[in-house]
Order: sequence, then C-alpha cells, then structure tokens
Amino acid sequence: MDERMKKQMAFALEIDKVKNIFRQTHLSMNGRNENDAEHSWHMAVMAYLLREYANEEIDIAKVMLMCLIHDIVEIDAGDTYAYDAEGLKTQKAREDAAKERIFSILPEEQKEEFTALFDEFEAYETPESKFAHAMDNLQPLMLNHSNGGSDWREHQVKAEQVYQRQGKTKLGSQKLFELTDSIIQENIRKGNL
Amino acid sequence: MDERMKKQMAFALEIDKVKNIFRQTHLSMNGRNENDAEHSWHMAVMAYLLREYANEEIDIAKVMLMCLIHDIVEIDAGDTYAYDAEGLKTQKAREDAAKERIFSILPEEQKEEFTALFDEFEAYETPESKFAHAMDNLQPLMLNHSNGGSDWREHQVKAEQVYQRQGKTKLGSQKLFELTDSIIQENIRKGNL
Repeated sequence: MDERMKKQMAFALEIDKVKNIFRQTHLSMNGRNENDAEHSWHMAVMAYLLREYANEEIDIAKVMLMCLIHDIVEIDAGDTYAYDAEGLKTQKAREDAAKERIFSILPEEQKEEFTALFDEFEAYETPESKFAHAMDNLQPLMLNHSNGGSDWREHQVKAEQVYQRQGKTKLGSQKLFELTDSIIQENIRKGNL
Repeated sequence: MDERMKKQMAFALEIDKVKNIFRQTHLSMNGRNENDAEHSWHMAVMAYLLREYANEEIDIAKVMLMCLIHDIVEIDAGDTYAYDAEGLKTQKAREDAAKERIFSILPEEQKEEFTALFDEFEAYETPESKFAHAMDNLQPLMLNHSNGGSDWREHQVKAEQVYQRQGKTKLGSQKLFELTDSIIQENIRKGNL
C-alpha cells in the first residue's frame, strides 16, 4: 500500500467514529437516539428523492456528498443541539479545529477538496448548500413529527425557535418549506410547541 | 401536501427502519454491531474517496446512490451474513418480495428508478455496480481487520470463503483487490482465518 492509499484508508477508518456521535433526535416509532452516520445517510437519500423540489438547479452528486460529510467534524466537536444556545456560541471554533485535524489525515488535495465542500455547506450560499441544509432540517423534523413531537416537548422548544431554524428551508426549497410549515402548525395546535 | 409528495415522504419515513437492521460486522475499536444505514453511509463516502481506483470510468453519483440504497430491502428481508450458506439460498426470494413492497411506496416512476438501480447493483455487470460491490466488500473487511479479525474468528470463517467473496473486488478495482489480498494474507498468518 503506497503512502497515498494509506492516508485514504486511515481517513476511511477514522470516520467510523461518526457512528458513535449521538443526536437529540430519536428514530421513528419512538426508537433510540439517532447517530450522525445514520442522519447523514438519511439526508443523502432524501436529497436524491426530493431533488425536484429544489428552488434552483442543483448538482445532486455534490448535494449528496455534502450531506454525507457535513457531520464528520462532530467526531471531535460533538453534536450541538439546534436549540442549545450556549453550545451554539462555541460550535464554530470547535468544528474548525476538528476540520483541520480530521481532514489533514487525507492526501493534501483531498484534504482541500473535503474542506472546501464542508466550508461550502457551512456558508449556506450556493444552491447545493441551501438544499443540503433543507435536508438537514427536514430529516429530523420528519422523525420528530412521526414521534408526536416528543423531541420538542422533551427540550421545551418554542415555535419561534423552530421557525428560526426551519424557516431557512425556504432558501433551498419553497415547496418543502410549505410542508415544514404545515408540520410545525400541526404541532403548535397539538401543544407540542 | 399533494399525493406525489405524500408518497415520497412516506418512503422517506419507511427507510428509517434500515437503522434497526444490524449486521455481523462490528464497529472499529471493538464497538457494537453495525447497522445497514451506517454501513451504507460508510460505503458511499469510501466510494467517493477511493474513486480513482476504479478499473473503469464510473459515474460516481450513481455509485454513491447504489451504495446508499442497496440494503433498503433488508428492512423486510433481514441481513444475510456473507458466510451464511443456508441464508444465502433464500436471500433472493426474500429480497425480491421486499423490493416490491418497499419501492411501491414511491410514485410510480421513482419506484421504477430505484428498482432499476437496485437491480443493476445486484446484477454485478456495470462498472458502477462492480465498484459499489468493491465498497460492500472493502468496508466490512477494513473494520474487521481493525478489530484483529474478530468477526471471522467468531464465525470460524475460512480463507477460501473470504476469497470467494472478496476476490470479486478485482472486478471493480484491481488496486483495491491488491490491498484486500494483503489484508487477508496478514489475517491468515495471524491465524484469524
């Protein structure tokens, strides 16, 4: 095995740890907490499945790849719950350090490629990033809704907090924001928010 | 939500169950058993990471998508261990029934698309299918090797069985088969096979 392949395989093994980073979201049928690998897998499949609803033309391979790698930094930085105000303050610094360590395992030009892709996702500017973020919002919303909104109730999340985050889905997909809005409204009516 | 989106979202929720299908492979650092969603996520990232080693030119988006959906049928059919001779006899019939039920949740033309993609993966004929299968072989090999070959020892797997399955990696990637071969040889030397 040459140096290049050795680095690639070291990275492939390192990212196995993503499967041990657990989120606040629970699996459907009131299952256990979901981990980042499962969440990323689900987002990528949903991106392909729902690509027709993107506001703009998107490179779907790029969107899928963004979905697949966007949480790798959480191996070091941990998961920051979307409604954890304290955690959100330090999230960027923690994730920047993680990004540098983990992507540095790769051969130089692949480090640059993965870093650029992660940065593009975070910047929330390109059509691909906006649609990937729409999946990052819709996937846990769907699971939580299927469980009767229990994740929101547990954390006493307020409707305005949910709208602050989920409202951005409209940047990637107006159609999927309409779905999101109807789900949030239903949960407000039921007293889950 | 119109009928089409309703079907798509029903499918998106249905496939959440893939996260509860556990495999014989264990996570690195002698972790717990891996599930199908995690395995599929890992395969898709590795496919992108290692795409330069494909024998033939490949459509990487198609390979990633194959990796992501190839185990969805196991929601109904269950996981069949690669070295379970009895299970392998009934695998195709179980998976065909599962494929029909699960992909029928989708709008008709997406059912056809996902079914065709799954069938292409299973047929092991196109460059994309061969490379996706190389990932399906390499990913658990890597994890098992990182754990000192414990999955093979536990199931008393023989080297010839491993070669029968892993030998096909060379159809997708001669380079990655060379890596595979060196890993198998090391495990034979250590008495794990």
